[in-house]
Amino acid sequence: MINLKFIPLNEIKRIQKKIKNPVLISQLLADIFRLNTLSMIMGAGSGHIGTSFSSMEIITWLWTQEMRLPNSDQAGSDYFFSSKGHDAPALYSVLIGLEKLDYKYIHKFRRLGGLPGHPDVRTPFILTNTGSLGMGISKASGLALARRRQKKTGRIFVLLGDGELQEGQIWESLQPAVNKKLAEITVIVDHNKIQSDISVKDTSDLGDLEKKFQSFGWVVARCDGHDFKSLKKVFADFTRIKNKPKVLIADTVKGRGVSFMEKLSADGLYKFHSGAPKAEDYETAFEEIANRVGIKLDSLKLEPLKFETKGIPDRSVAVNQEKLVAAYGDELLKLARRHKNIIGLDADLAIDTGLLKFKRAFPDRYVECGIAEQDMVSMAGGLALEGMLPLVHSFACFLSTRANEQIYNNATEGTKIIYAGSLAGLIPAAPGHSHQSLRDISVLGSIPGLTLIEPGNEQETRLALRWAVEKNKLSTYIRLVSVPCSIPYQLPASYKLTIGRGVKLTDGQDAVIFAYGPVMLGEAVRAAQLLEKEGIGLAVFNLPWLNEIDEQWLKENSQGYKALLTLDDHYLKLGQGAMIAEALAKIGNSQKVIRLGLDKVPACGQAGEVLVFHKLDAFSIAQAVRESLKK
Amino acid sequence: MINLKFIPLNEIKRIQKKIKNPVLISQLLADIFRLNTLSMIMGAGSGHIGTSFSSMEIITWLWTQEMRLPNSDQAGSDYFFSSKGHDAPALYSVLIGLEKLDYKYIHKFRRLGGLPGHPDVRTPFILTNTGSLGMGISKASGLALARRRQKKTGRIFVLLGDGELQEGQIWESLQPAVNKKLAEITVIVDHNKIQSDISVKDTSDLGDLEKKFQSFGWVVARCDGHDFKSLKKVFADFTRIKNKPKVLIADTVKGRGVSFMEKLSADGLYKFHSGAPKAEDYETAFEEIANRVGIKLDSLKLEPLKFETKGIPDRSVAVNQEKLVAAYGDELLKLARRHKNIIGLDADLAIDTGLLKFKRAFPDRYVECGIAEQDMVSMAGGLALEGMLPLVHSFACFLSTRANEQIYNNATEGTKIIYAGSLAGLIPAAPGHSHQSLRDISVLGSIPGLTLIEPGNEQETRLALRWAVEKNKLSTYIRLVSVPCSIPYQLPASYKLTIGRGVKLTDGQDAVIFAYGPVMLGEAVRAAQLLEKEGIGLAVFNLPWLNEIDEQWLKENSQGYKALLTLDDHYLKLGQGAMIAEALAKIGNSQKVIRLGLDKVPACGQAGEVLVFHKLDAFSIAQAVRESLKK
Repeated sequence: MINLKFIPLNEIKRIQKKIKNPVLISQLLADIFRLNTLSMIMGAGSGHIGTSFSSMEIITWLWTQEMRLPNSDQAGSDYFFSSKGHDAPALYSVLIGLEKLDYKYIHKFRRLGGLPGHPDVRTPFILTNTGSLGMGISKASGLALARRRQKKTGRIFVLLGDGELQEGQIWESLQPAVNKKLAEITVIVDHNKIQSDISVKDTSDLGDLEKKFQSFGWVVARCDGHDFKSLKKVFADFTRIKNKPKVLIADTVKGRGVSFMEKLSADGLYKFHSGAPKAEDYETAFEEIANRVGIKLDSLKLEPLKFETKGIPDRSVAVNQEKLVAAYGDELLKLARRHKNIIGLDADLAIDTGLLKFKRAFPDRYVECGIAEQDMVSMAGGLALEGMLPLVHSFACFLSTRANEQIYNNATEGTKIIYAGSLAGLIPAAPGHSHQSLRDISVLGSIPGLTLIEPGNEQETRLALRWAVEKNKLSTYIRLVSVPCSIPYQLPASYKLTIGRGVKLTDGQDAVIFAYGPVMLGEAVRAAQLLEKEGIGLAVFNLPWLNEIDEQWLKENSQGYKALLTLDDHYLKLGQGAMIAEALAKIGNSQKVIRLGLDKVPACGQAGEVLVFHKLDAFSIAQAVRESLKK
Repeated sequence: MINLKFIPLNEIKRIQKKIKNPVLISQLLADIFRLNTLSMIMGAGSGHIGTSFSSMEIITWLWTQEMRLPNSDQAGSDYFFSSKGHDAPALYSVLIGLEKLDYKYIHKFRRLGGLPGHPDVRTPFILTNTGSLGMGISKASGLALARRRQKKTGRIFVLLGDGELQEGQIWESLQPAVNKKLAEITVIVDHNKIQSDISVKDTSDLGDLEKKFQSFGWVVARCDGHDFKSLKKVFADFTRIKNKPKVLIADTVKGRGVSFMEKLSADGLYKFHSGAPKAEDYETAFEEIANRVGIKLDSLKLEPLKFETKGIPDRSVAVNQEKLVAAYGDELLKLARRHKNIIGLDADLAIDTGLLKFKRAFPDRYVECGIAEQDMVSMAGGLALEGMLPLVHSFACFLSTRANEQIYNNATEGTKIIYAGSLAGLIPAAPGHSHQSLRDISVLGSIPGLTLIEPGNEQETRLALRWAVEKNKLSTYIRLVSVPCSIPYQLPASYKLTIGRGVKLTDGQDAVIFAYGPVMLGEAVRAAQLLEKEGIGLAVFNLPWLNEIDEQWLKENSQGYKALLTLDDHYLKLGQGAMIAEALAKIGNSQKVIRLGLDKVPACGQAGEVLVFHKLDAFSIAQAVRESLKK
């Protein structure tokens, strides 16, 4: 049991009532919002502390002092949204403190029906859906053009990350905003100089940022992003410029406000980009901020802070969980020793995509591209044309869509490239729909010469990578679930990958279900276990091939059951189940196919509640099987 | 009958033998290559004259004087490729003149088995597949990194268009190339200042280009791109810089070399971007260039040019062709008068996407975004969030893939946006696979709240747009065939769109085929006419809904036939036919589904030959029906 502490509304109001000096109250509020942000993230079990803390003064100043807040009279109000989006907990904390969001949401961060991991318009005062990077200035341009048509005045503040500036769309959107004289737009770069894993400089150096923005015709200012007086002055200066968009490069410190979160670890990595801190780190961090607030209150002759305390269960990690991404990284290392032409490309996610070992073992064969998926994929195309075997890494949601045309272009060249998309599927559901990759079968599956495979455990992950490197003549997309999984099945020791064919995980004579990946296979096998107790036999097949179905194999393994189901960790439309159904129709099978999968934009929340919400948990699957047998 | 004239190899060799002065021979060769380029385009019936002519001196100088040409000893050779790609006829003409490509290909531009409309690696000396813009520097970076690993030296020349600089990927790729010190790369911007329709300045002004490239750390030079001495000097200067990538901004003139092709028309539009000239324009242009060459040869006491002459049939346009894009543009105009919140967004394709009338009627509701699809789509997202109804236009291939994540992001906001993707499907096949959109059902079809529809004639185009604007609550993607079509069927006058349902075009009791769009429906109906003569009845259904199938309607209209076929103007994988087959499997139909569509990267060529090649012409479809009935 961990005790979380929050600063309740009456405490915030008490302090606001007593202190009227804008800078002084903002300093206090920023730290109070930090405390609530920290506890929200700790309560959720994940969230972005570093960037929330680096942007806290900016967000606090804008919402408490600078902006004419959105209200029923929209015409003159200022708009704010974050393009990077992972600072959402900071904004939520501010909105809750200002009573723009109900206080109860402080306990519902990254929970079903609560506040999503990345911004979503269904939350009050959230203007745009962000979280996939680089869209902010474009969105702001559209908002500005529409507001002009409606004679609305007011500024539009857009918060960007510095790593986000590696995205081409940012630069694509700069010149048009100047050409259209969109002086409404004020961009603020939260220039905290650290990306997901390491420094911006060592990821993909941004060069001379001021000169770059200026060369596109933007008005540029630069200041300490934690200094309220400087922020005030810059925004006042900006207001006087009526014909150009403006950008403030705000120098900030990632993790600002907690000394041990303000720097890289001894191993050179930054540890507080995402995820929740350890329990002792939470307590130390909370204490450091709370002490600072306490000293300030004391010096102002105000009573010390009172906290609301809420216990949460200690999240003990289950033993024997399988980690597919780690297995991938380990196997890659082995293969890279044998295949000297392997080049690993990364888009600022070396840790999350399992590339860290490879990076350290083969620094000269590792290409860090920064958050620049299009550049990375076309670069891989060039490498492949010249005889290399590029392995391209990012989160599935970004890799498959952002660089979609580039992947197709590479495929038309007939070269061999391996794409590894991690964070695939519904789970984890806490980051929200910008990060849940549920379209990658659809968006990549029709590319000629690109085979899609999703392994169901560590063993199959290793086999899939080996197959892609050593067997497949053309390109492969390896779809990887990132969450550690307790896996209730095993593959035969002799198991080999055969294109289009799967393997039976549970015996059963009544119904058959085809699925892939550890999350859905796990739920399906658990459903089979539930059904077995009732005397219903469910055969679960692992079919790891996402866009290749061996019709003969399918025919042999789908007949003789009273019901046939497919289970997608993907939208129902154009998922694997659609391909299975199509294959059955092509062979003239009269078996009715029942499909399970996502039929709407996925919910944000903890794994269990979201699986239940989408009826993709073991109980719901068992129920679907029962119903299928009734018909 | 039109007579095309070509300059044969022996003539080129004769002149090369006599003139050794590099500048003088380059001047003559550039014009000779222009003549052959012009005739190749005229022979093909389409191609990009303007950009081929603006870059002709650059390409000629590089290939005849500057480059260490690729040969068996690759280590020291220089590389060249065009990122914009539509200057391919210029490069082909040069390669043919230098005997790098067999002369016979001069008559096979944009023909099956010949030289594709945009570059493809299957053609000798073509390094990369381009034609979709913005990938060039990224590809070059990959090539450079791979060449370094192999200890290869030599430069990599990449030719960019100036409109291409509006693409974000260009700017995404600039900084990494500097960070990696890729001095091998020399970018040349063919700065001809005119885009598809109008000037770059009026499309999406580029601002201060030199300053922009410099701000990213590139070495920048600028010169007259038609002046060989200047080109020579710049490349010599560049060679001395060993640690930075370089860019030459080459000031050129679009259509250079033919006076009437060097300027905008009286209506403010540029008429020689793509397509073939009229017969009289071809002759006038040829004469102007040939005269210039003649005068020069005469002054050098050399014999006048001898031509090879080849007749081609006059391409008379069939009467009564339906033009879906024009109908779309016309209907949009009507709807825009009624719906004041309609905003039209364009990515430098106002003419090709049918937007010109709207642009002229509602200049303040028209947003020209330039070649910046990501910015355009996210801008539309912002407009929609603020109450506008944005209609977003580009070629289907680019819109659906380049801005794929942005379209999804908009959809998750629950706003209403209409996307119109023209140039959809296999035909025209002359531009090649970068422009043939055969994946859009797959890449967009799974997006929640986005309905895909492809109209089959002008009437249905109007209905589709009206439905999207006035009936559909969420977003629509309208997939439009761009080629004018002779349409052998009519829709009932009372025809109304009902989501997921189609309409029967031909009666027939033996087999049924489901298709969409004027190209495939036309072939299917012609197949039905062929089969009717043999006593085989083929029912052809137009099912315009690409990702919504009404299962009940399908059940009622697919039964009682001896064979059931689907016909996709799309890859077989994840096309409409897959959805139909899936729907049948879901309702437990035992009818075997036979699918027709694309099973590989599409061929480039004239419409007829490519349809035959892919077995999607009326005869092949009829044959598929016959075979389906035998089984």
